[in-house]
Amino acid sequence: MSFEPIKEYADSDGGYGSVVTEYADFDGITLESGVFMGPLRVAYETYGTLSPEKDNAVLILHALSGDAHAAGIDANGRVGWWDALIGPGKGIDTNKYFVISSNCLGGCKGTTGPPSTNPATGKPYGRSFPLITIGDMVNVQAKLVQHLGIEKLHNVIGGSMGGMQALEWAVRHPKAVKSAVVIAATARLSPQGIAFNWVGRNAIYSDPATACLEPAPGHVYQRMGQGLAVARMIGHITYLSEETMEAKFGRKLRLKDMNGYRYSFGENGKEDGEFEVESYLQHQGSSFMRRFDEDSYVIITKAIDYFDLAGADGDLVTSFKDIEAKMMILSFSSDWLYPTSMSLAMVRALQAGKKHVSFLELDLPYGHDSFLVNAGIPKLTRIVRGFLDNV
Amino acid sequence: MSFEPIKEYADSDGGYGSVVTEYADFDGITLESGVFMGPLRVAYETYGTLSPEKDNAVLILHALSGDAHAAGIDANGRVGWWDALIGPGKGIDTNKYFVISSNCLGGCKGTTGPPSTNPATGKPYGRSFPLITIGDMVNVQAKLVQHLGIEKLHNVIGGSMGGMQALEWAVRHPKAVKSAVVIAATARLSPQGIAFNWVGRNAIYSDPATACLEPAPGHVYQRMGQGLAVARMIGHITYLSEETMEAKFGRKLRLKDMNGYRYSFGENGKEDGEFEVESYLQHQGSSFMRRFDEDSYVIITKAIDYFDLAGADGDLVTSFKDIEAKMMILSFSSDWLYPTSMSLAMVRALQAGKKHVSFLELDLPYGHDSFLVNAGIPKLTRIVRGFLDNV
Repeated sequence: MSFEPIKEYADSDGGYGSVVTEYADFDGITLESGVFMGPLRVAYETYGTLSPEKDNAVLILHALSGDAHAAGIDANGRVGWWDALIGPGKGIDTNKYFVISSNCLGGCKGTTGPPSTNPATGKPYGRSFPLITIGDMVNVQAKLVQHLGIEKLHNVIGGSMGGMQALEWAVRHPKAVKSAVVIAATARLSPQGIAFNWVGRNAIYSDPATACLEPAPGHVYQRMGQGLAVARMIGHITYLSEETMEAKFGRKLRLKDMNGYRYSFGENGKEDGEFEVESYLQHQGSSFMRRFDEDSYVIITKAIDYFDLAGADGDLVTSFKDIEAKMMILSFSSDWLYPTSMSLAMVRALQAGKKHVSFLELDLPYGHDSFLVNAGIPKLTRIVRGFLDNV
Repeated sequence: MSFEPIKEYADSDGGYGSVVTEYADFDGITLESGVFMGPLRVAYETYGTLSPEKDNAVLILHALSGDAHAAGIDANGRVGWWDALIGPGKGIDTNKYFVISSNCLGGCKGTTGPPSTNPATGKPYGRSFPLITIGDMVNVQAKLVQHLGIEKLHNVIGGSMGGMQALEWAVRHPKAVKSAVVIAATARLSPQGIAFNWVGRNAIYSDPATACLEPAPGHVYQRMGQGLAVARMIGHITYLSEETMEAKFGRKLRLKDMNGYRYSFGENGKEDGEFEVESYLQHQGSSFMRRFDEDSYVIITKAIDYFDLAGADGDLVTSFKDIEAKMMILSFSSDWLYPTSMSLAMVRALQAGKKHVSFLELDLPYGHDSFLVNAGIPKLTRIVRGFLDNV
């Protein structure tokens, strides 16, 4: 490919060094739906050292497609997804803080989720995994934090779905959180957000892996799962800003030797992407298919759909009434999925409830994903470091 | 369903009365790709009477999913898609103007397109239909206009893809157009637009109808084409504004008797939409599957992708240099797919070239589709009537 990938982690030096994913096992929890879910396993990593007072723990909360491996270098040589922000001397300084990062409930990276074995059947849960909420994810994280012997977290921090979790932490476990950083999030998923998730799941449902579940005798279908790639591509468009798309791709053609348009779809009429932006999305979709589980995608997006701290009466002030944590709300100027107006709705409700809240709209052009893009990390570093050190 | 459909045509009274779709046949045209495409059939309707001077013709240009039936009532009792704007005494007054509306090349509503029989094989073209451009569509329309004995159109008018065609008319056939109204369009599809189209087509490619083309002997697959519904739902989200979605749906649940969330997907675990916005989109997708051809969707979206009057050097002023028509550019304040900034790019280029151009941003909350929503028609009526009468 001729373009620069947007999510390069070149600045991510794996400075924390080698890390190992650990696992904690629990009997289970009662979900918001009332269903008991157990046994539970949580995949997590820690960076830094817990102080004797156990008062320096920071919990990292990942977004839809993240995992426990947030910093350092794992056994496969892979650098963590937020390594640019977490490590010695970085925004979340592992010389000062004991950082915990876990894979969320319903995920597919070690924590109990659709790919896990259902003890009742001896087979993977798959799409029969019970429907969960962001609050359920947080309650499982609370089990982990307790397991690690920590009563009060210095900070919880996350972007997008991770930001929703940070909010839930402050609301549901007010005594257990000293501060929270809520990045590029909303207190209530919008109908547009629900709509994009719905379409993504339907792309999964309409793919051959789902549709041809009962092939004729002797006829085997490979699980293609292209639907998951389509779902990811839809999501990916919403994570980027128009500005980034123009700057990175514009209308550039993928095949450099073409003098003008190709007027064909590719070999055998199978469309392979004539524009660079198509090729980029295809790459994102394909790599996602390799690294993610489509049933986890279904379960997690549905949990996001359910997220609505405002509730039916839309009263955020009441929903926030128990919050004791110092809150920092961050939005990105170019984020059209969870725009600044959604952050401001939280800020206003916190202010109305006389809570301690700081707010900043960061002027970054990378859209919703700005908290993951290296070029945005310096700004994030300055803000997060200052906030953590002054809580 | 408990919600009001957004695209109601209650104000559309079919005032022009009964209409019949007619057909014109041509040998063919050489496409922009260099391929000769023929024979060609064009489905069209006309409303009103051509003046003896043949100087009162207005050509209507439909958007992606439109057809020739723009006004009046057809044999099936169906009211035309822009009936609220076209008819006796309406914005495009059929007492004054001779209105022509045709289905576009590549469509599936009577004009030659993928469902048409390929004379070389005796079978439908399907996805082997040659790739076309917006310019090719316009050149076919020019054949029709010539066939009707008209040398110069009083006006060409269209929204979205129809607006792109109106621009192409002014650029390619400067002597044949006295005026053009370009609504909610762009002179150049953005990478974000290319990206949404690409994902929509990939939803089609990954559906079972495509993937199970070779079922086992004795095993028949129905053409499900759910991928087309997914593609349409993606598109539909981009046609609506966030504001409309909030006002019409918010986070309302579809099942009114539910006290809170359902925490299940529906019968047999098949997700059927828990939120109203999901149900609405599903309805849009399903009805589109019944009325549209997925290969036409592929061909037409690709033509839109190719649309770039600015060209590689981005010089719209030069691209517009031959325009003689009086131009009116209209945008909608809530359109995030082709926002006002894209209309302004055209306006600036026309002004720089000292062309006759009027511009208005209409303050309507219905998003990109505002030109099709009845509540937007009164504003459109006043503007279009005034422009047509004063050209």
